[in-house]
Amino acid sequence: MNWHEHLANRTKRMKPSTIREILKLTQRSEVISFAGGLPAPGLFPVDKLSEAATKVLQDKGSEALQYSTTEGYLPLREWVAGTFENVSTNHVQIVSGSQQALDLVAKCFFNPGDKVVVGAPTYMGALRAFDPYEVDYVTVDCDDSGMLPESLEAALKQNPKMIYAIPNFDNPTGVTMSLERRQKLIKLARRYNVPIYEDNPYGELRFEGEELPRLYDLAPDLVIYAGTFSKIMVPGFRLAWIVADPEVLVPIVRAKQAADLHTSTYTQMIAHEVLSSGFLDEQIERVRSYYKAQRDVMLGALETHMPEGISWTRPTGGMFLWLTLPEGVNATELAYEAVKENVAYVPGEAFFADGSGENTLRLSYSIATPEEIEQGMARLGEVFKKHLEPVTA
Amino acid sequence: MNWHEHLANRTKRMKPSTIREILKLTQRSEVISFAGGLPAPGLFPVDKLSEAATKVLQDKGSEALQYSTTEGYLPLREWVAGTFENVSTNHVQIVSGSQQALDLVAKCFFNPGDKVVVGAPTYMGALRAFDPYEVDYVTVDCDDSGMLPESLEAALKQNPKMIYAIPNFDNPTGVTMSLERRQKLIKLARRYNVPIYEDNPYGELRFEGEELPRLYDLAPDLVIYAGTFSKIMVPGFRLAWIVADPEVLVPIVRAKQAADLHTSTYTQMIAHEVLSSGFLDEQIERVRSYYKAQRDVMLGALETHMPEGISWTRPTGGMFLWLTLPEGVNATELAYEAVKENVAYVPGEAFFADGSGENTLRLSYSIATPEEIEQGMARLGEVFKKHLEPVTA
Repeated sequence: MNWHEHLANRTKRMKPSTIREILKLTQRSEVISFAGGLPAPGLFPVDKLSEAATKVLQDKGSEALQYSTTEGYLPLREWVAGTFENVSTNHVQIVSGSQQALDLVAKCFFNPGDKVVVGAPTYMGALRAFDPYEVDYVTVDCDDSGMLPESLEAALKQNPKMIYAIPNFDNPTGVTMSLERRQKLIKLARRYNVPIYEDNPYGELRFEGEELPRLYDLAPDLVIYAGTFSKIMVPGFRLAWIVADPEVLVPIVRAKQAADLHTSTYTQMIAHEVLSSGFLDEQIERVRSYYKAQRDVMLGALETHMPEGISWTRPTGGMFLWLTLPEGVNATELAYEAVKENVAYVPGEAFFADGSGENTLRLSYSIATPEEIEQGMARLGEVFKKHLEPVTA
Repeated sequence: MNWHEHLANRTKRMKPSTIREILKLTQRSEVISFAGGLPAPGLFPVDKLSEAATKVLQDKGSEALQYSTTEGYLPLREWVAGTFENVSTNHVQIVSGSQQALDLVAKCFFNPGDKVVVGAPTYMGALRAFDPYEVDYVTVDCDDSGMLPESLEAALKQNPKMIYAIPNFDNPTGVTMSLERRQKLIKLARRYNVPIYEDNPYGELRFEGEELPRLYDLAPDLVIYAGTFSKIMVPGFRLAWIVADPEVLVPIVRAKQAADLHTSTYTQMIAHEVLSSGFLDEQIERVRSYYKAQRDVMLGALETHMPEGISWTRPTGGMFLWLTLPEGVNATELAYEAVKENVAYVPGEAFFADGSGENTLRLSYSIATPEEIEQGMARLGEVFKKHLEPVTA
């Protein structure tokens, strides 16, 4: 069987994740990696989860191990609904990680050739989820407060199907959309009648500044919201949720049923057990103060070790920070140089739907130790100095 | 926002599951239901799983709760590979339930308008998984040994993209494909260069007769195989596997990554812990003897209570049994009559891609008690007698 000749056309659009390719190069133990986006495993509440895992099987084993409803475990949906104003369980769909939320929404909404508005840069996983539905991207320029309204409006004039946005502590840039920009985004989306997909995996990971309203809070009629268990607790459960108008959830439930019937009953019940115990507040405190300290170490090390001509974002939450090298410097080429020097990052290009951003890169401060961050930034500074010198000389 | 006008064209193809609609009608406690396809929860090895769940978190908590590889937990893939001859881990992809295997294969292989060969009847969940990819179905007539070769060849002449088959204890009919038919199927598939999707959720649930080779065993170059944890252990983990040529798994891995990154690390590790402990043999023995006894009770009760003119299959494994009423009798209409008499089944029509089968129905003997089976068949016999009388009079 020549399998290749049997593949669907859409399969040509499916690319492997650049991050995963880079991660393969960074598995030598000498490499200090800032490439992955893994949450710090030291923050996983192993004992709490273990307790809950045992309790769920003892108390409700038959239910936890059986098939369940596609919409999700009702008490978990109630918990999600309770994190919003005026949201009931029929606004909530449980999914197998945020990535599945992206896939299901794309499946229900995108025809081949449809345009999707994304930031330049944006979350690579969203592009990979949307690609198989053969969409085209319209990119919007961003600054330190998020999408630029003029650029967004130009994009909206192209009659797109949806706007994809990560308003809090964006992956990859760490940038948070200001309240003014949120309002402007909604105003424009409404004017051009384009729904917004709000991806909010990092929203709870704010370590300074005031909490801003979610886009969904500002315009529940316009927004499909996705939240997740992965960054506040653990990613290994693959547990997330969509919050949207019940009319949106009609096709989403059908798509979910066709895709995997339902998300694991057991992990949903464990998650609910832990979330409803009141432990979450304590957990979020731990996560926030840990990542804040990590960010502070990285900002300090960048200040110490980066040569002139390089700038970076100063995230107020989340796990990522974004570097911009001088124009003309190729961060993808330098990534291979960096790996030779035993330090790794993700080249920014991977996050640009339009193939730009060659002088940018993403650093994660989530899992390296403070010593590794210091050491890694020193190595990276050396690599950059070597390659920036001819430019600055 | 008028959400409906933003939906993709494919969304029109997404139908709700008829079974789930029927199940809603059968939730009154007075109703004895043979409609659902739930495994008997009394067979769930709760203590074993609880032990494993605790052990995994104690020994490897950080790994179990973290992001993991898209391909699946390597030791679990090794276990799957070990259940085949000449299969290595690079032939194995872990997925979130068999339903996801259907979705991913459809996503990678089916263009709109492609033809897929299915039995008449076939598993409804497969139709629901394939529908969003806007395929057309070519149905093949079946008898008590599976797909009829002449009908299959006629279907293959229509240049289909794939053949979907459930060779063991078919859902819905309970029929097992004979060895001769398996060989014939493969011969025809090879002649017409059409790959086969072998769905084998019930293969281990054989309670009499000789085990037959899987289609994959007979033609690994032609077959994409799907197995699952759901029927031998528990469905609530949503754990299954694809076994196929590594060339097939290249796009499947990308599609899986785009769809949900990976299946829950935690449930994969628990499953592996239990599967590799040697406990599976014991568990399968329990499952087999339980379902055999259930089937025997149902066959006896059918013999006692069904009026003349009704025939049924005699499955040698699995969870389902298939009734054929006289021509002209509408089993969908009678299903509502039956629910009034507090007994439920799934009308067969739902399993026919061509809308035929109106005089057929599926009974599951998996979860009712022997008393309920006896009582339920008595009620059903009464309903049928009442509506068959005018025909037989």
